[in-house]
Amino acid sequence: MTQGPRPYNFSAGPAAMPEAVLQRAASDMLDWQGSGMSVMEMSHRGKEFGAICSQAEADIRTLLAVPAHFHILFMQGGGLGENAIVPMNLSRGAGADFVITGSWSAKSQKEAQRYCKANVAASNADSQHTRLPDPATWQLARDASYVHICSNETIHGIEFQELPDLAALGSDAPLVIDFSSHVASRPVDWRRVGLAFGGAQKNLGPAGLTIVIVRDDLLGRALDICPTAFNYKTVAENKSMYNTPPTWGIYVAGLTFQWLLQQTEGELRGVEAMEQRNIAKAQLLYGFIDASSFYENKVAANCRSRMNVPFFLKDESRNEAFLAGAREAGLLQLKGHKSVGGMRASIYNAMPLAGVQALVSYMREFERSHA
Amino acid sequence: MTQGPRPYNFSAGPAAMPEAVLQRAASDMLDWQGSGMSVMEMSHRGKEFGAICSQAEADIRTLLAVPAHFHILFMQGGGLGENAIVPMNLSRGAGADFVITGSWSAKSQKEAQRYCKANVAASNADSQHTRLPDPATWQLARDASYVHICSNETIHGIEFQELPDLAALGSDAPLVIDFSSHVASRPVDWRRVGLAFGGAQKNLGPAGLTIVIVRDDLLGRALDICPTAFNYKTVAENKSMYNTPPTWGIYVAGLTFQWLLQQTEGELRGVEAMEQRNIAKAQLLYGFIDASSFYENKVAANCRSRMNVPFFLKDESRNEAFLAGAREAGLLQLKGHKSVGGMRASIYNAMPLAGVQALVSYMREFERSHA
Repeated sequence: MTQGPRPYNFSAGPAAMPEAVLQRAASDMLDWQGSGMSVMEMSHRGKEFGAICSQAEADIRTLLAVPAHFHILFMQGGGLGENAIVPMNLSRGAGADFVITGSWSAKSQKEAQRYCKANVAASNADSQHTRLPDPATWQLARDASYVHICSNETIHGIEFQELPDLAALGSDAPLVIDFSSHVASRPVDWRRVGLAFGGAQKNLGPAGLTIVIVRDDLLGRALDICPTAFNYKTVAENKSMYNTPPTWGIYVAGLTFQWLLQQTEGELRGVEAMEQRNIAKAQLLYGFIDASSFYENKVAANCRSRMNVPFFLKDESRNEAFLAGAREAGLLQLKGHKSVGGMRASIYNAMPLAGVQALVSYMREFERSHA
Repeated sequence: MTQGPRPYNFSAGPAAMPEAVLQRAASDMLDWQGSGMSVMEMSHRGKEFGAICSQAEADIRTLLAVPAHFHILFMQGGGLGENAIVPMNLSRGAGADFVITGSWSAKSQKEAQRYCKANVAASNADSQHTRLPDPATWQLARDASYVHICSNETIHGIEFQELPDLAALGSDAPLVIDFSSHVASRPVDWRRVGLAFGGAQKNLGPAGLTIVIVRDDLLGRALDICPTAFNYKTVAENKSMYNTPPTWGIYVAGLTFQWLLQQTEGELRGVEAMEQRNIAKAQLLYGFIDASSFYENKVAANCRSRMNVPFFLKDESRNEAFLAGAREAGLLQLKGHKSVGGMRASIYNAMPLAGVQALVSYMREFERSHA
């Protein structure tokens, strides 16, 4: 165990987790609640793990205010797996619409072409993925089986501040959102959503767990070639136990759900409390960057991600020195994604305001000594 | 943490793990080797996790004596996922042969029908899955893209004591083995194998990690509908990092590989040492059952599993009392699979001989007081 405070970890994912969750996972390791077993050693069909899994499902339902007509599925394969699993389950081999806003939505559209006509309804590629295309301009197909967006682009740092209202745009297709990198950072308007999916490894728990939340009328549409283990209807009917689920991931995500439910800010609780903290963290960091002539963020102000803040030193020859100094200051994993370059600070739920304050202090001092 | 000895856990999977592995996972939890991060918090593309993953791959290669022309892939989806992923990667949409020896091979054959002509080359269903069909009687197709066996049937307790030599049977198809429930319990004759797959949760680590070991000439055959995240060629070319891998599972499996490499029995090390222990454990338990008129195992002696020992009380009205007494004696998860009934003792690598001795003592005492 470490002595003293832990460093601040700005990894885009797998990412920092609440220290209380890690402490609990460590202390439960050899004997979960007097069972004589580690959670990793439990049959997924036994009463002990059954209780862990049911509690985790109930807690995320409460946390995200998921309506009763949505199923919560614990799966495997991550977001890239879902890029195939969604069209195998929903497309019926017909058309689907994709709104391209960055790397992740582009990958989703590309993979879906294996299974259906994957129409690009809109793209912000001409802005180098720095602004969101206005929903009023989206070219939605009349017969689309679904409309896919990535509601937070981890690499490009773009976030939908509001989910599109497809009905108001004249489409009755269900909206699919890849919410991997901002799930549980803000409320979800489920009235506008048919299916949401996300890898757990950014804001909910360890890598290897995928969470799918799907409206019940969307089950039972899978193509024959959809593997049974990835057929949402089969997974739902078997309460995520058709195949052995990633039990450790569900357990740790469940601890995280409980931690999130306990968080408060004034009168606010859970995700609403986290949203306030996330707004404060993001305002602090973007505000500092915008006021500086040394750093910059290129994303339009109305669609900047609260979770992933890519930024650049205007003099990129300082990058290595910036990263080395950050590591020395206990600020880890700030290097930007290779496809974008520069820096990226991922400030998920588990990152406290103090971590962002420490980053801003470091950035200010680095600017002062290098400008 | 527990005080005193832990109970013996006979779960079929997820299953008991070496206590030393659990201790290490707990003590590393908040700070892996001075990195300031939990393994769960590390970017999969960072140097820390890169080192963990490379070491795990090197160690399982050593442990299982995997030749250089085989790729070792860390994937997701488990055995049931592989039931679709294997034919999507290997069948070319043509025929494949299946030898049905129990529940798992039957499920594999059924799922493969989505992707190819899944020929039943042999079946032991007429013996209620209690003996292995003689390879000389298998009806192998001339043009099969592969031949699938489950080399240890977890539910029925049947194990191939020797892998079939397909070339000697006149087939040049690659052999695919589902070795989930006996991997690392005995050496593998790789000369006879084209692909081996297994979920980690029985003998190697936590649920949610799938290990695939595939000969390099079998890459690049995937159907167009194979999801990119499950295309063996893509996974191999990206060193299991095309999508975010189940990082915790790889880390814990890696600790298990190191534990296994350290085990010795006389001159023997690693898997060969484990094999000796596993033979001793199985002989003790089967020997006791065979000598008893109170218990029975129905599997032919030449194909009894060393890992999974299903057994029955001849008077099944005693089942509940047997299980309750076992729990009191610190012997956990002995209930048989619902499709077979009775009892099942899974005695994987992490189960010491002392655990089997304790089980036999309990069984003897239960028989004495209830016969």
